[in-house]
Amino acid sequence: MDREQQPFEDIEVRGHIIDSLLLPKILDVITTGGGSFSIDEIAVGQSRHDSSYARVRISADDDEQLNEILRQVSDHGATPIAAADCRWEAASIDGAFPEAFYSTTNQRTEVRLSNTWVEVRLQEMDCGIVIDGAGGAECRPMTDIRRGDQVVVGHLGVRVFPQDRSTDRGGFEFMNSAVSTEKPKGVAIRQVAEQLTATRASGGRTLLVGGPAIVHTGSVEALCELIREGYINLLFAGNALATHDIEHALFGTSLGVRLDCGDIVEAGHEHHLRAINRIRLVGGIRAAVEAGALTSGIMYECVQHDVPFLLAGSIRDDGPLPEVVTDALEAQRQMRSLSQGVDFCLMVATTLHSVAVGNLLPAWVRVVCVDINPSTVIKLNDRGSFQTVGIVTDVAPFLTALVADLRQLPDG
Amino acid sequence: MDREQQPFEDIEVRGHIIDSLLLPKILDVITTGGGSFSIDEIAVGQSRHDSSYARVRISADDDEQLNEILRQVSDHGATPIAAADCRWEAASIDGAFPEAFYSTTNQRTEVRLSNTWVEVRLQEMDCGIVIDGAGGAECRPMTDIRRGDQVVVGHLGVRVFPQDRSTDRGGFEFMNSAVSTEKPKGVAIRQVAEQLTATRASGGRTLLVGGPAIVHTGSVEALCELIREGYINLLFAGNALATHDIEHALFGTSLGVRLDCGDIVEAGHEHHLRAINRIRLVGGIRAAVEAGALTSGIMYECVQHDVPFLLAGSIRDDGPLPEVVTDALEAQRQMRSLSQGVDFCLMVATTLHSVAVGNLLPAWVRVVCVDINPSTVIKLNDRGSFQTVGIVTDVAPFLTALVADLRQLPDG
Amino acid sequence: MDREQQPFEDIEVRGHIIDSLLLPKILDVITTGGGSFSIDEIAVGQSRHDSSYARVRISADDDEQLNEILRQVSDHGATPIAAADCRWEAASIDGAFPEAFYSTTNQRTEVRLSNTWVEVRLQEMDCGIVIDGAGGAECRPMTDIRRGDQVVVGHLGVRVFPQDRSTDRGGFEFMNSAVSTEKPKGVAIRQVAEQLTATRASGGRTLLVGGPAIVHTGSVEALCELIREGYINLLFAGNALATHDIEHALFGTSLGVRLDCGDIVEAGHEHHLRAINRIRLVGGIRAAVEAGALTSGIMYECVQHDVPFLLAGSIRDDGPLPEVVTDALEAQRQMRSLSQGVDFCLMVATTLHSVAVGNLLPAWVRVVCVDINPSTVIKLNDRGSFQTVGIVTDVAPFLTALVADLRQLPDG
Amino acid sequence: MDREQQPFEDIEVRGHIIDSLLLPKILDVITTGGGSFSIDEIAVGQSRHDSSYARVRISADDDEQLNEILRQVSDHGATPIAAADCRWEAASIDGAFPEAFYSTTNQRTEVRLSNTWVEVRLQEMDCGIVIDGAGGAECRPMTDIRRGDQVVVGHLGVRVFPQDRSTDRGGFEFMNSAVSTEKPKGVAIRQVAEQLTATRASGGRTLLVGGPAIVHTGSVEALCELIREGYINLLFAGNALATHDIEHALFGTSLGVRLDCGDIVEAGHEHHLRAINRIRLVGGIRAAVEAGALTSGIMYECVQHDVPFLLAGSIRDDGPLPEVVTDALEAQRQMRSLSQGVDFCLMVATTLHSVAVGNLLPAWVRVVCVDINPSTVIKLNDRGSFQTVGIVTDVAPFLTALVADLRQLPDG
Repeated sequence: MDREQQPFEDIEVRGHIIDSLLLPKILDVITTGGGSFSIDEIAVGQSRHDSSYARVRISADDDEQLNEILRQVSDHGATPIAAADCRWEAASIDGAFPEAFYSTTNQRTEVRLSNTWVEVRLQEMDCGIVIDGAGGAECRPMTDIRRGDQVVVGHLGVRVFPQDRSTDRGGFEFMNSAVSTEKPKGVAIRQVAEQLTATRASGGRTLLVGGPAIVHTGSVEALCELIREGYINLLFAGNALATHDIEHALFGTSLGVRLDCGDIVEAGHEHHLRAINRIRLVGGIRAAVEAGALTSGIMYECVQHDVPFLLAGSIRDDGPLPEVVTDALEAQRQMRSLSQGVDFCLMVATTLHSVAVGNLLPAWVRVVCVDINPSTVIKLNDRGSFQTVGIVTDVAPFLTALVADLRQLPDG
Repeated sequence: MDREQQPFEDIEVRGHIIDSLLLPKILDVITTGGGSFSIDEIAVGQSRHDSSYARVRISADDDEQLNEILRQVSDHGATPIAAADCRWEAASIDGAFPEAFYSTTNQRTEVRLSNTWVEVRLQEMDCGIVIDGAGGAECRPMTDIRRGDQVVVGHLGVRVFPQDRSTDRGGFEFMNSAVSTEKPKGVAIRQVAEQLTATRASGGRTLLVGGPAIVHTGSVEALCELIREGYINLLFAGNALATHDIEHALFGTSLGVRLDCGDIVEAGHEHHLRAINRIRLVGGIRAAVEAGALTSGIMYECVQHDVPFLLAGSIRDDGPLPEVVTDALEAQRQMRSLSQGVDFCLMVATTLHSVAVGNLLPAWVRVVCVDINPSTVIKLNDRGSFQTVGIVTDVAPFLTALVADLRQLPDG
Repeated sequence: MDREQQPFEDIEVRGHIIDSLLLPKILDVITTGGGSFSIDEIAVGQSRHDSSYARVRISADDDEQLNEILRQVSDHGATPIAAADCRWEAASIDGAFPEAFYSTTNQRTEVRLSNTWVEVRLQEMDCGIVIDGAGGAECRPMTDIRRGDQVVVGHLGVRVFPQDRSTDRGGFEFMNSAVSTEKPKGVAIRQVAEQLTATRASGGRTLLVGGPAIVHTGSVEALCELIREGYINLLFAGNALATHDIEHALFGTSLGVRLDCGDIVEAGHEHHLRAINRIRLVGGIRAAVEAGALTSGIMYECVQHDVPFLLAGSIRDDGPLPEVVTDALEAQRQMRSLSQGVDFCLMVATTLHSVAVGNLLPAWVRVVCVDINPSTVIKLNDRGSFQTVGIVTDVAPFLTALVADLRQLPDG
Repeated sequence: MDREQQPFEDIEVRGHIIDSLLLPKILDVITTGGGSFSIDEIAVGQSRHDSSYARVRISADDDEQLNEILRQVSDHGATPIAAADCRWEAASIDGAFPEAFYSTTNQRTEVRLSNTWVEVRLQEMDCGIVIDGAGGAECRPMTDIRRGDQVVVGHLGVRVFPQDRSTDRGGFEFMNSAVSTEKPKGVAIRQVAEQLTATRASGGRTLLVGGPAIVHTGSVEALCELIREGYINLLFAGNALATHDIEHALFGTSLGVRLDCGDIVEAGHEHHLRAINRIRLVGGIRAAVEAGALTSGIMYECVQHDVPFLLAGSIRDDGPLPEVVTDALEAQRQMRSLSQGVDFCLMVATTLHSVAVGNLLPAWVRVVCVDINPSTVIKLNDRGSFQTVGIVTDVAPFLTALVADLRQLPDG
């Protein structure tokens, strides 16, 4: 078939399109989709910080094929040079998108409305985009859709701006498995310390997502210091972290193990249940602090230093504590709302909560995930949280070293 | 101090008290608690299947110390020879036990009411025991307590019958780490096959608790066969297993990976969301099967073969599917109710759901936990699900081999 | 500084330079090294199988900087358009290279001698290149260097041809962690079966590198069938695999565990030592087979089917068996020699031997590494064995499924 | 059959026979072996530190069965009350035991010679016992046997004294998986610090067995301090630890990664090879230190502080360094000889060397094994190194915290 007779479209793509693999990926999408291409212009930035540019003509056998290819390359930031407005349809029922809905990424996204590119608010992956009457657009999860909501369909008039993965890394890391245990850890810990300090200094907000191993491994005091010193501005956890923290405050144990000497206490496995019961009797964590019944620990410091916390329920919870939000959708809504404006997120020793929060955060929030089990970090990356830097290490000495580093930093 | 002047109590303990470590543990509790003992009678069974018996006099410095020791040894099945009725108090508020509540184990338990030992119904760990007006007793979780419920307090008049761990094992396993990857796997798989066959043959019920890796690793058809052949009578899972199963039925992918060839499909990461949306548009999984919109897969087979399923929600869910129970407490209630009468439980590739179900089952339900990650099995054991046999292996070849074994068994 | 006054060199690079990341990497090396570049010509292949081409001018501040950059980009396959002969120096002592020696990769390499590009023989990573009198060149390890050997120094006149990583993969895998446990396993196993069949059909040679978990997990018979059917032409292992295989043949146990029922045999931990002792008394494995003292198992099949085996010693060995090569350097020499001409290498459940063999094989030998522990695969990749495809799965059901697949393949 | 007509033997067993599981195990051995028993006397110690005693009559159907049972129970420390001298046979060839050889454990063992119990020297598991002319006995590995050596056969006249496992633990640990990552780490680290301090204070010797992850993770300086301060008196490692330590000293990198900032250095993967080559050119590690060519790092500190080191070769070694002992049997011999008199052994981040050293040490040497991968600890225990306490943690922060703890201890 003569190329001139084929339908075609010119697209352009900007950024670190070569070293961040965008251009190769786009070219692959085109040929995999049955199309062909010519690179009509290419300008490669001289340094790692310079942006590159490419203009590519995509040809396909027919319009359908071409549209499918355009749909796919748009996820990689390629935008047709002659763009059209986005299209939308009204939701036919509550709680579901129209069949052809545009499915969002966690990258910065714009939709074209009346010939103007408008930034989509509340960016979050796996949502739809709802157009409001005032010319705005925002991400909305499936369950929050109401009948009649105007939901963007197809890829036309939607463009995404992939976050550069390479910009702030200390060297190209293509060839390296992201999750090796054999990496210099002191450096990674110091970088986390610097990030915490910088975020605090600039008035930014840091979210800690933590699992109960923080308590089991004896790191309560380290986290308490982070809270007291203002490094942590928001805490997401589950019933287990709060319960064992309170068990530790009341009984000195975590899961029945004394944290000061490692001994197993007889009947200590009941302690966490007795701790929950006592908090329920007194009316909740905040009430317990105010009543003087809870005088130390992570939850205590959160209450004392006005650090908001969200305890999300799960089916393995005992009790749970009164503050636990047991409905998963309600917990997601509160996490969404609370995490607006977070600049840095430190995930420590929890797969469930890390994946859940990773799903909600936009790509430009820097995330560090610390776990002794490499599979947690692999899982986060598999699910699209590319901005995550994984540190495979043990939570207790990690937090101890982090606190020590923070004390030595000039602004720490 | 003269021993005769000390307070003392005679206890007795029966069962595999030596090889199941009960007696050593009881003696240790006594001396650790400050008491002393004399073994006044000991009869050791000749064979592994014979029961042993010991009568032990416990002496302590004062009554308080003695009671504390008696409280602790009672968890190991030691009962005072001269027993008293159990004691109880009324709950002062909804959703909490009296402070001194007796905290249950998952072992068979009796309470003494009006000089008669009564078996506690609905045995479950980490609950309280509520006495009803009709002379009965049952386990009840903290959140289901209502003001005025009569809740057992203290250990007096409560006795437990620890499940023998050694009885049905093929040899003593003291010296072996429970979770080694280096064990003969064919044997373990065959034993699971025999258990499934025996349970089906005797009219028993088997519960499968499964994670999405069943789908990701390409094992849908193996599990479908288990359901069709009547080996699985109940399914507990999360939104992810059902979603990726339906994604696979509708698109041939799981998390965007084609399961027939391993290729990654462009835009395939959207498939699971489109699958959920389509099911929501049609009104649910059952409705989709009835409408002919879902014609294969695990969820399809469950609907077709009247296998009840419970999909419990979590904060990392997308969607979720309409059948998902998003409230954790409600999901626990339904799991409790559905799992009554389960004889065998096979847990495959899910930490969250395995721990949750392990918390609910009584100790006499045989549990096999299959996971490629040893830490899942370690976690189950750490939390008290001692009856769990762990198999560290890969889910896909495990299920394939299991199905092949079942086909070859005489009653399979 | 004016660019025209700077020293510069034109290089060219061919192949899948964009999607295999070569070009981005080369450009990064240039700018990181302080140089600058212009892409003077670029031709991008239309399909994944077409080769691309780029001509790049590298400028630097001075000659030293330029040479350093050229040295580095040469490892990525970039060659100066105007090339010079390679340079060499004589080794000053036995067992060491000249200080400035060129350190080899495992990629196909050529050196320029008298204006002609000559392929380097015995390609192996971390060696030097020795020039012989007859105009040839070959890789030689440090310890085999003799005083006076002519060893290539510097990067001038050396060019490498990086193996295309993308060519034979079923789809781009950029975005995916290489070692996830959550991948369709049936597909991967079928591909291994096809590779074994194709290698056998074409008269190629397959090397199996195996660890003792093959025996411990009950997979002896599966491997025996692979040997009998001619799929395995060479076996590298350690004392442990052979010992436990023979223990199994003589006593029915592995590490004292009966492989037919999983029971632990009393005093069974001595079996492996008694097995070794008996083989030593009879004069070795081959002698034991010939004497009728060893009549089944992996080692038996190797002897019966003339499959050469190398058992390399390690410091954790008991015994060892008489055939074990206890000197590491001698074992490496024999592995090097035996592995010449190997087309396919299957590594199963051994980190030590997998890394050792991975170090010796050239990049064009396809390697599949099977281990239940993701860290083994990560380790192989970290050390530069990029051609390795990792399958994180359990060895026993893997081998069972592999044998079943082979039986069903048309030429299997 | 009437019991009185059966052959029988009275045995006795002493120690923590109940809580260390000896008695249950012995009773199980008897019934599993087809015999029966009566406990004719039992005296249980009051406290955890008191010894217990039992006298048991073993009956069997015939003498052969009785002897087999006696053979087995003797490994658990049970000795016939009427004992006979041990028996021995001369080895028929070099390098092999007589077929019926007694296979040693790593527990303290005595043999009866001329009616006197004689302690076996050089206790080591998986060896034979050789009787010398002077009335002594010692363990000897299979390969060191010479024709004519008098080797103990059978179990008669041999008794072992199982190491009490419970004595110095801080509480019973029956119910706990030994290798959980969820334990208080600060406590464990402090206990290691106390052990190091106590060993140094008492003039004892501490052996460190280490892997290259000590260098890769940036912990060189911490280990150097341990050496300088006299906490480490002996180092066992492989070529990799020494090589990367020297790479770090010469180039600032480990495996090409800069340890001060985590950046990957271009061509840095060659550094370790250049480091080895340079050391070979100068004649070895010691020569390099003396020549001023190596001025920092672990190996430097060993040379400067007269800490003997053994570098054992393996087949994955590059180079290797001149000091590396490449023959596995010779390396074992040197490890055996050097480790005589070691009181405490700290194993850090190496499976191969840990298992090798674990095989050589008698049961009364206290061993702590630190690894981020639980499977290493599981492997050590599976192979019989019961005295090992495993700490699943990350080596870099572990060593940092250990050094900090040591600085704060009164005698640290």
